[in-house]
Amino acid sequence: MPTKSKIIYTLTDEAPALATSSLLPIVRAFASSADIEVDLSDISLAGRILAAFPERLSEEQRVVDGLASLGELTKDPHANIIKLPNISASVPQLRAAIKELQGQGYDVPEFVDNPQTDEEKDANDRYAKILGSAVNPVLRQGNSDRRAPAAVKAFARKFPHSMGKWSKASRSHADYMREGDFFSSEQSITMPEAGNVRIEFTPKGGETVVKKELPLEKGEVLDSMFMSAKALDAFFEDTLQDCKEAGIMWSLHVKATMMKVSHPIVFGHAVRVFYREVFDKYGDLFNEIGVNPNNGMSSVYEKIKTLPQSTQDEIEEAIHACYEHRPEMAMVDSVKGITNLHVPSDVIVDASMPAMIRSSGKMWGRDGKTKDAKAVMPESTYARIYQEMINFCKTNGAFDPTTMGSVPNVGLMAMKAEEYGSHDKTYEIEADGTMRVVDANGNVLMQHDVEKGDIWRACQTKDAAIRDWVKLAVTRSRQSDTPAIFWLDQERAHDLELTKKVEEYLKEHDTEGLDIRIMSYNEAIRVSMERMIRGQDTISVTGNVLRDYLTDLFPIMELGTSAKMLSIVPMLAGGGMYETGAGGSAPKHVQQVEQENHLRWDSLGEFLALGVSLDELGLKEGNPRAQILAKALDKATERLLENGKSPSRKAGELDNRGSHFYLAMYWAQEVAAQTENAELAAEFKPLADALTENEQKIVDELNAVQGKPAELDGYYHASLETVAKVMRPSATFNQILDSFKQ
Amino acid sequence: MPTKSKIIYTLTDEAPALATSSLLPIVRAFASSADIEVDLSDISLAGRILAAFPERLSEEQRVVDGLASLGELTKDPHANIIKLPNISASVPQLRAAIKELQGQGYDVPEFVDNPQTDEEKDANDRYAKILGSAVNPVLRQGNSDRRAPAAVKAFARKFPHSMGKWSKASRSHADYMREGDFFSSEQSITMPEAGNVRIEFTPKGGETVVKKELPLEKGEVLDSMFMSAKALDAFFEDTLQDCKEAGIMWSLHVKATMMKVSHPIVFGHAVRVFYREVFDKYGDLFNEIGVNPNNGMSSVYEKIKTLPQSTQDEIEEAIHACYEHRPEMAMVDSVKGITNLHVPSDVIVDASMPAMIRSSGKMWGRDGKTKDAKAVMPESTYARIYQEMINFCKTNGAFDPTTMGSVPNVGLMAMKAEEYGSHDKTYEIEADGTMRVVDANGNVLMQHDVEKGDIWRACQTKDAAIRDWVKLAVTRSRQSDTPAIFWLDQERAHDLELTKKVEEYLKEHDTEGLDIRIMSYNEAIRVSMERMIRGQDTISVTGNVLRDYLTDLFPIMELGTSAKMLSIVPMLAGGGMYETGAGGSAPKHVQQVEQENHLRWDSLGEFLALGVSLDELGLKEGNPRAQILAKALDKATERLLENGKSPSRKAGELDNRGSHFYLAMYWAQEVAAQTENAELAAEFKPLADALTENEQKIVDELNAVQGKPAELDGYYHASLETVAKVMRPSATFNQILDSFKQ
Repeated sequence: MPTKSKIIYTLTDEAPALATSSLLPIVRAFASSADIEVDLSDISLAGRILAAFPERLSEEQRVVDGLASLGELTKDPHANIIKLPNISASVPQLRAAIKELQGQGYDVPEFVDNPQTDEEKDANDRYAKILGSAVNPVLRQGNSDRRAPAAVKAFARKFPHSMGKWSKASRSHADYMREGDFFSSEQSITMPEAGNVRIEFTPKGGETVVKKELPLEKGEVLDSMFMSAKALDAFFEDTLQDCKEAGIMWSLHVKATMMKVSHPIVFGHAVRVFYREVFDKYGDLFNEIGVNPNNGMSSVYEKIKTLPQSTQDEIEEAIHACYEHRPEMAMVDSVKGITNLHVPSDVIVDASMPAMIRSSGKMWGRDGKTKDAKAVMPESTYARIYQEMINFCKTNGAFDPTTMGSVPNVGLMAMKAEEYGSHDKTYEIEADGTMRVVDANGNVLMQHDVEKGDIWRACQTKDAAIRDWVKLAVTRSRQSDTPAIFWLDQERAHDLELTKKVEEYLKEHDTEGLDIRIMSYNEAIRVSMERMIRGQDTISVTGNVLRDYLTDLFPIMELGTSAKMLSIVPMLAGGGMYETGAGGSAPKHVQQVEQENHLRWDSLGEFLALGVSLDELGLKEGNPRAQILAKALDKATERLLENGKSPSRKAGELDNRGSHFYLAMYWAQEVAAQTENAELAAEFKPLADALTENEQKIVDELNAVQGKPAELDGYYHASLETVAKVMRPSATFNQILDSFKQ
Repeated sequence: MPTKSKIIYTLTDEAPALATSSLLPIVRAFASSADIEVDLSDISLAGRILAAFPERLSEEQRVVDGLASLGELTKDPHANIIKLPNISASVPQLRAAIKELQGQGYDVPEFVDNPQTDEEKDANDRYAKILGSAVNPVLRQGNSDRRAPAAVKAFARKFPHSMGKWSKASRSHADYMREGDFFSSEQSITMPEAGNVRIEFTPKGGETVVKKELPLEKGEVLDSMFMSAKALDAFFEDTLQDCKEAGIMWSLHVKATMMKVSHPIVFGHAVRVFYREVFDKYGDLFNEIGVNPNNGMSSVYEKIKTLPQSTQDEIEEAIHACYEHRPEMAMVDSVKGITNLHVPSDVIVDASMPAMIRSSGKMWGRDGKTKDAKAVMPESTYARIYQEMINFCKTNGAFDPTTMGSVPNVGLMAMKAEEYGSHDKTYEIEADGTMRVVDANGNVLMQHDVEKGDIWRACQTKDAAIRDWVKLAVTRSRQSDTPAIFWLDQERAHDLELTKKVEEYLKEHDTEGLDIRIMSYNEAIRVSMERMIRGQDTISVTGNVLRDYLTDLFPIMELGTSAKMLSIVPMLAGGGMYETGAGGSAPKHVQQVEQENHLRWDSLGEFLALGVSLDELGLKEGNPRAQILAKALDKATERLLENGKSPSRKAGELDNRGSHFYLAMYWAQEVAAQTENAELAAEFKPLADALTENEQKIVDELNAVQGKPAELDGYYHASLETVAKVMRPSATFNQILDSFKQ
């Protein structure tokens, strides 16, 4: 007999954690009517710190390691986890949290810069696992299913975001390498059996060096490819000349955050080519003082501060001289004079290109005006989709959010699939020579002749991840009765390997009556766009990079933001994780609560995630009440959006708490009004009536507390009781909810 | 027992007729070796005149009616006709021919403007059948098969024509109506049974008028559609504003020659919108003096000559004032100041758009410089393919003739298929009301609410023509082992009807192993272009209009001209007609012969047509020698092109006759060198040797006659003997040929 149905709701940090304190009681009350327990799992930064040092805490102080248990839970087919945004802690944040905990009497150790003692080293080792993006890798045990929730889509259709008009005569376009980039050199193999391979480099006339050994599974796909540094520089120079001639702006778009290793190098090449004369003249000096062009021109400006003023002036003059003969560069901030080449993370292709396309294909110029631009994206593999969309907008005009269809995504992500250029298999080649991938028997599996400075990278994709991805695509196509396109380019070595698998694994499913196709990226995006402007939906089934790009690109056209997308990770083991939207944990929101007791955090992401969570639980566990709750919740969310009951940014007006009240009221009304289950409707009738009757009173009570500081007894680790007192200030609302709880 | 294999070679007019006199003896000699007779059929203008009045001619003067017999022959499955360009006689040309014949003693009647007597009326009736494009409708009894001959393609790859570079930042584009045009109003039905339908018009509150009765066959497809005059005017105004804002040129591209009725009206609207103030002010005056804007601004300039000088000046000033606030207009001739709106036939979309795309997307401005332009083509049905190609060139650069593949065409043309807007079923609506197509039982089959000035048209396509077209597509795909795409847009009513038939008729053929697809125009051209830049061929299987457009568009990209295409009409009855390239019959060429005895006419089209003619005859009649001759001829043609043995334009250099000699020499060498049929090789060895040994002597003899006037005893009706004397001046060559003839 299965245990009682359970949803795990995560306790994280800052604004989402505060909002949880108000929302969770509502969720628990409603869920109880379907016999569902909603457990809270603490994966906050403070919680993770406390869990790391049990031996230093008293019995009462000790906490369960929430993240570790969630990690375990991902292997459970019954897992149903609602994941809120959490802090990806930087060192200063970590130190602040430690200090706060120590002040509350928790004996957690310091984090020191240069650990000396064994104790310090041990502490730092434990902290290392807490720093940075520590949560997602543990929880994202599956592929990705992202879509625009019906409520959000309906809202965007009624209240469309602004879209810049496109001129048919626009000069803007995307430009990318035609040879010498990763696309043209890509090789790919599928392992016939499990085994180790090694990545080797043999410099011309030199000894072979093993760069890395990789244990590969049977059926695993391994790619390798490189970008020629010479071709890259020539490409940058060409694009600059071309812009100069055509009289349009030049703009670089890379993905230095995701392609952590390869793209900063690409960015550095752009800096050196654009400011060629500067680097020709001061290159040696720059090396001495530690300028790294991969960090952008900000590195130059920062490092030259140590030089005599006259030298600084000289260098700055040389920089300005470059602008004389170069085309105008797109600006990140024209007021502050921050160009596109300032830092590599300012212009991130998956955000910057949709923004450009939404804004009539224009970017900001030095004079603060928007202008046509060449969007330079060296990697042709992915850049082509943007050119395709630009051509489409030139031909058909801007997309119309009031009529357009949707392009949900099924993305290959599980088991670190397709992490191109991001991690541990990317090299900037140190000398002319040959890169090889060699199997355990010494057979050369792949090989590239490379030159000094070339960027070589490899990438793994596990068979089980691909198989699950195909299954997810078929499932989504079936469930949503929507055509699905596998974006696989028959001119890419990697995609050819994947195509074989996709064709094989599709046979494992009943695809009768489904429209599932395999298309090149160009064709896929084109067909999707043609359907989209006719109001039709098309599922994009893509690899990891396109997953990342498309789940910004289409949502930004459709909804004006990607933050309102449903993000589901159907886990390999069978469970599900429901992420509550992108966006950080919002420290500024907390400050506003402390100062004027107004929480502007919008829990829309939580509402949406909860809807899917309930629906899937209902489906999997055979709990029809859960499915009715889900359907009613979605309707409630839609009404909330339409009636403008989202939180305001201003104290004294409806905030997060008031928004939760309206959700509860609409939700109760919807359950009471549904006719599928009369018993459930009857159960909710009194709740709906009570909330409806007391609407004004509750809203008044909720708003009354605003305008004066709120007392929280901690930032990273406030007590749940204190937070609850702040976040649940309406006695009427609390009483009605309590009396409903079953 | 079948009669002896026969090829019909047509005797036409002017330069092609002169060239025939030199080429035919060669053809006859070579063909005789395969036991093929080559008959000459006189379809010249003079011949057709003489054939029309047998009762007025003496026994010896009478001629066979070549065109009538050829018309009969098209029903013979053995028909094999090589069709050279002929005069589409205008009235002045007809009169000149009559005069010449009368001077030679033929008692043919005058053609009078206003026939009064019965005799005059009878004569004019007969002449009416000779005037204009009288030949093609009789002979084109089939669908169309056009392709780039291998020899021509190979030559273009080795000696590519120039292609203008495309800037990625080009502002040029195609623009077309988004609503209110033929595309959006198209309706289409398939007749379930044979029957009469009538086209009716009911003005608002008025009596129904029958415009036309049409007898339709079972399975015949009938379309109707209209273009809104208001929407058209608004569209033109929008495009003008848009150009003005964007700062690019405005250019109109219509097809007034083919869409004889509808497109001049469209053109007239453009004239009235561009020069709105002129027509507002002088409209009444223009009506009085007979200005017809459908004939372009030339009509204004011509008609106002009758007005007082001061009024003329006023009008011209008003015209110039329009230029002040309108965007720059593309020029047909910037030196002479002839704009795009001068006459409707100056800018013909199927020629002008490829020219624009070949020239970096630019057109000529008033200052004689080339500039980016908006190509305005109201009919969205077909205009989209040009925007697609423009986008493609912006993205991928200009096409490269040295590497690009080919897009041959199989076009639906038989039985007057899809003659949109050209002939007898197009109406400019005279009042607000309703156009209906009604069957014999009074059922309304199609209906449009129209307004005064709207352009309504209907169009027929016979089932037998479609069925044959599908068969031809499969045959071509099989024979050339090339994928074929049916260009059928699932958003067009007509194409939906055709798609049903195509799907049905495809089942009648063995398509095992063939790649035959149905795609929208956008998708089809895109896929064809993607394949093309990778060197791959794709057969376009299209309706009649796209046939016309594409057989210029792709050849001009691939070969620099559409004149070198093979144009075959596999006739419904089973025979074949081989057209020898586009291009007129070249009166200037004849003048040069008369003045300096140099014929610059290039018989390449004849060589190519003869190659296919021989090959298909060989195949159909089981004559392997004919097939060997065909193969050898193609090789000879290729060598001729590569060795630069095409006619020069300058007297004293190799001309048409010399070019024929080289063809004969290469052809003989190739037959002698082939190993498939040793006997045939042996037969040709002496001929090949004789021609090779006498090369210099023959060329000298041929060139020696040049530089002085040639004596022809007629322009329209020179005697064959006189012409032969002029066109065969090398005694050595003649003697060698004569001694070979078998």
